[in-house]
Amino acid sequence: MADKIRVTIWNEYRHEVNNEEIAKLYPKGIHGQIASFLSEESDMEVRTATLDEPDHGIPDEVLDNTDVLLWWGHMHHGEVRDDRVEYIRHRVYTGGMGFIALHSGHHSKPFRALVGATGNLSWGENQHEILWNLKPSHPIAAGIPDHFHLEEEELYAEPFYIPNPDDLILGGWFEEGYIFRSCCTFTRGVGKIVYLQPGHESVPTYYNPYIQRIIKNAVRWARPNDFGYEIKNEAPYVRSALDPDAK
Amino acid sequence: MADKIRVTIWNEYRHEVNNEEIAKLYPKGIHGQIASFLSEESDMEVRTATLDEPDHGIPDEVLDNTDVLLWWGHMHHGEVRDDRVEYIRHRVYTGGMGFIALHSGHHSKPFRALVGATGNLSWGENQHEILWNLKPSHPIAAGIPDHFHLEEEELYAEPFYIPNPDDLILGGWFEEGYIFRSCCTFTRGVGKIVYLQPGHESVPTYYNPYIQRIIKNAVRWARPNDFGYEIKNEAPYVRSALDPDAK
Amino acid sequence: MADKIRVTIWNEYRHEVNNEEIAKLYPKGIHGQIASFLSEESDMEVRTATLDEPDHGIPDEVLDNTDVLLWWGHMHHGEVRDDRVEYIRHRVYTGGMGFIALHSGHHSKPFRALVGATGNLSWGENQHEILWNLKPSHPIAAGIPDHFHLEEEELYAEPFYIPNPDDLILGGWFEEGYIFRSCCTFTRGVGKIVYLQPGHESVPTYYNPYIQRIIKNAVRWARPNDFGYEIKNEAPYVRSALDPDAK
Amino acid sequence: MADKIRVTIWNEYRHEVNNEEIAKLYPKGIHGQIASFLSEESDMEVRTATLDEPDHGIPDEVLDNTDVLLWWGHMHHGEVRDDRVEYIRHRVYTGGMGFIALHSGHHSKPFRALVGATGNLSWGENQHEILWNLKPSHPIAAGIPDHFHLEEEELYAEPFYIPNPDDLILGGWFEEGYIFRSCCTFTRGVGKIVYLQPGHESVPTYYNPYIQRIIKNAVRWARPNDFGYEIKNEAPYVRSALDPDAK
Repeated sequence: MADKIRVTIWNEYRHEVNNEEIAKLYPKGIHGQIASFLSEESDMEVRTATLDEPDHGIPDEVLDNTDVLLWWGHMHHGEVRDDRVEYIRHRVYTGGMGFIALHSGHHSKPFRALVGATGNLSWGENQHEILWNLKPSHPIAAGIPDHFHLEEEELYAEPFYIPNPDDLILGGWFEEGYIFRSCCTFTRGVGKIVYLQPGHESVPTYYNPYIQRIIKNAVRWARPNDFGYEIKNEAPYVRSALDPDAK
Repeated sequence: MADKIRVTIWNEYRHEVNNEEIAKLYPKGIHGQIASFLSEESDMEVRTATLDEPDHGIPDEVLDNTDVLLWWGHMHHGEVRDDRVEYIRHRVYTGGMGFIALHSGHHSKPFRALVGATGNLSWGENQHEILWNLKPSHPIAAGIPDHFHLEEEELYAEPFYIPNPDDLILGGWFEEGYIFRSCCTFTRGVGKIVYLQPGHESVPTYYNPYIQRIIKNAVRWARPNDFGYEIKNEAPYVRSALDPDAK
Repeated sequence: MADKIRVTIWNEYRHEVNNEEIAKLYPKGIHGQIASFLSEESDMEVRTATLDEPDHGIPDEVLDNTDVLLWWGHMHHGEVRDDRVEYIRHRVYTGGMGFIALHSGHHSKPFRALVGATGNLSWGENQHEILWNLKPSHPIAAGIPDHFHLEEEELYAEPFYIPNPDDLILGGWFEEGYIFRSCCTFTRGVGKIVYLQPGHESVPTYYNPYIQRIIKNAVRWARPNDFGYEIKNEAPYVRSALDPDAK
Repeated sequence: MADKIRVTIWNEYRHEVNNEEIAKLYPKGIHGQIASFLSEESDMEVRTATLDEPDHGIPDEVLDNTDVLLWWGHMHHGEVRDDRVEYIRHRVYTGGMGFIALHSGHHSKPFRALVGATGNLSWGENQHEILWNLKPSHPIAAGIPDHFHLEEEELYAEPFYIPNPDDLILGGWFEEGYIFRSCCTFTRGVGKIVYLQPGHESVPTYYNPYIQRIIKNAVRWARPNDFGYEIKNEAPYVRSALDPDAK
């Protein structure tokens, strides 16, 4: 295992450029704000990447050196190149790279391909959300109270078309009568995947200390395991587990 | 498999006797009301049992002839005899009897023993609840819309201390800011278990057609499987699966 | 729900054409043999489709009228057109079509895309397999003994790179020291998915009565649910669950 | 979180006293051997307890100061006092104490009560076992190869009557045709539970470096979480999550 967790924060980074209000809220971009609190952690080594960089900032060599990839995308999922999605999938399934889909990442190409889902949900205007801790024993819930408030978040509502998660960590209550599975985990191949709902571009969610704690916890939980053998992307022919010399 | 599903509806049956308002709502008892809509189903054969009957109405011979046991208890869980709890557990684990815990059955002795839980939750005054369908592919959700309303239900709120359910079917939204895992399934031994939250004694929940549909679906889902071998409650000594004559 | 379950059995259908031994074993093709025992069931309506038919025999109108699709493919996964894979995924995720991947279907495009997996495993020569019933309460295990033998099956061995299944129904023992998760279920979108390992082209597995029973059970389990609302493939904007007239 | 993980290893400790062969294999007792390799870990603080000590060596004050309890019992499950079982359950469900059931602990009172199971299985003579790594991404599988051998272990065979585990980590192959779910995890209340099959008293399993690694991994995985709120064993009455001053 690498000494530090090598984190790459990917951001579409268009809202913050095109919209003055959002630029004020996230002057360094959403990726910059996430990077700022992850960088404080002594066990993490953080870099960022954005849609408009060459190869979206995630050429093979970056992904090969990423332990956990965070993904914030919203309006431009369709612009993400399929070869990048395929390489992310390869890195998660056979390299154990962690993948954390943030907010509208539910509809991103990599999340949908990784877990096997449309990622559809219902959505609406910003409103009061209360997040409930449904799995206090999970490492991602470490330090999180039984519930906490977000004054305003974009409404994301059930039905949310995802597979049964391995663990359902947070449930969201929204004032207009809706609920949501707001934080949940999946394992695919030898990799770990987290979905976290709060994080709309027009609200200061990534400044909330509980959200920051959840993201830090998620990064640590999602890092690749210390594999006891080489995971290969193939289907080997084998002779006998009883006689290792059999051919 | 028996031709009909042999259903036993167990009820504490004290509220309806001691409280005039509740008696008006459920003149035949909660068990009587549930029996009335299950009895309409041509594939079900329904009987009822109550706390104050000898052996609580569930002596061994009744449980031995029950495919699915529904359980409504509230204030008098402690009066239920431990030998009845043990026999229910035996019937579920090794006979495949289905067990459906209704409403305050989350704290009943059989539910807690069967699934392995305290069944603790938070609770409060009656209020508006909206139930969201989180697993439309599940047989228990057949015919259920994406959401439906209960004008008033007793507040049951997270954190709800249950094991990860096999399937989470309904999520509840409550107007005072709470959510709940309102319908979920478990498998234990060779039996199937359902927990269903709505059903307070002071509100007409068991007259709601969606609730009735869910209960009918749950009974059908929870019936014992057509086992292909005799399930025994023991740990047999075996010699060889390769040589059936080995001794 | 349609009166009968509309089953489509898809087969690569090359081995049976190109190899004399296999042709003798499955003179009507593997799809023909499966069709022959499913057609005996009064609640099933069976058709078949093969790789070399136009649109691989599964144009949109066939898939739109299929409740459960069985898939046997082996050497020519790469020839399956991506638009067919996408339409299968659409039908499972938003239409609830069941998908049953048979044997080497672990590596088929639709299985891997549906569940989110490489589907990699280890494999080897035909040998004695014993199948153990790990979930006797599951409808797919109905009528199946605690274990049964296949004199010869192709070795499929762990590690098998699949997500945690919803239920693990059969485990396989192989004489050369290997084990396998031989029958397991997944839910994706509003559809149900089964993987069943036994079924190599060179052995008479599809004549085995337990395998036939498992496939019949799987078809019934995987049929689309009786949805209580229209499942759409979109992310609708919503105003308020409390005020249905809100705009 | 305590600086070190406070581990208590409980052992029935009768075989090693009454049987000369076993005494030779485990001169310090099975608990002593496990303690010897766990004590080498700088993040663990280890103590032991046995059946014949007062309160079986686990009075309330010991359990209150235990983060992870390992349990090896075999022939004398029935002698374990019910009040100790109840207190273990309390500590796991509401304190998050980890519980690791070793080998014949599948039939121990605490394991069966904690997870909700008979724990029945089939068993037989010692034979060659191969353990397969089914979940390389799990922390308990860290450093474990895709498979490893135990020259001899007591046969434990399916059907094993346990609930669906949260994660299935190891599968066992036995030479006489049997398989077993050999290492699996459960969560109950706010606690984590592991079952690990290898560890018969007549074989040197606890000297095997992979088994030692698995146990070390399991202890670290099962330690209580850093809870963000006080977990209580009650069902509190609540007024409003929206208005914290409501009464």
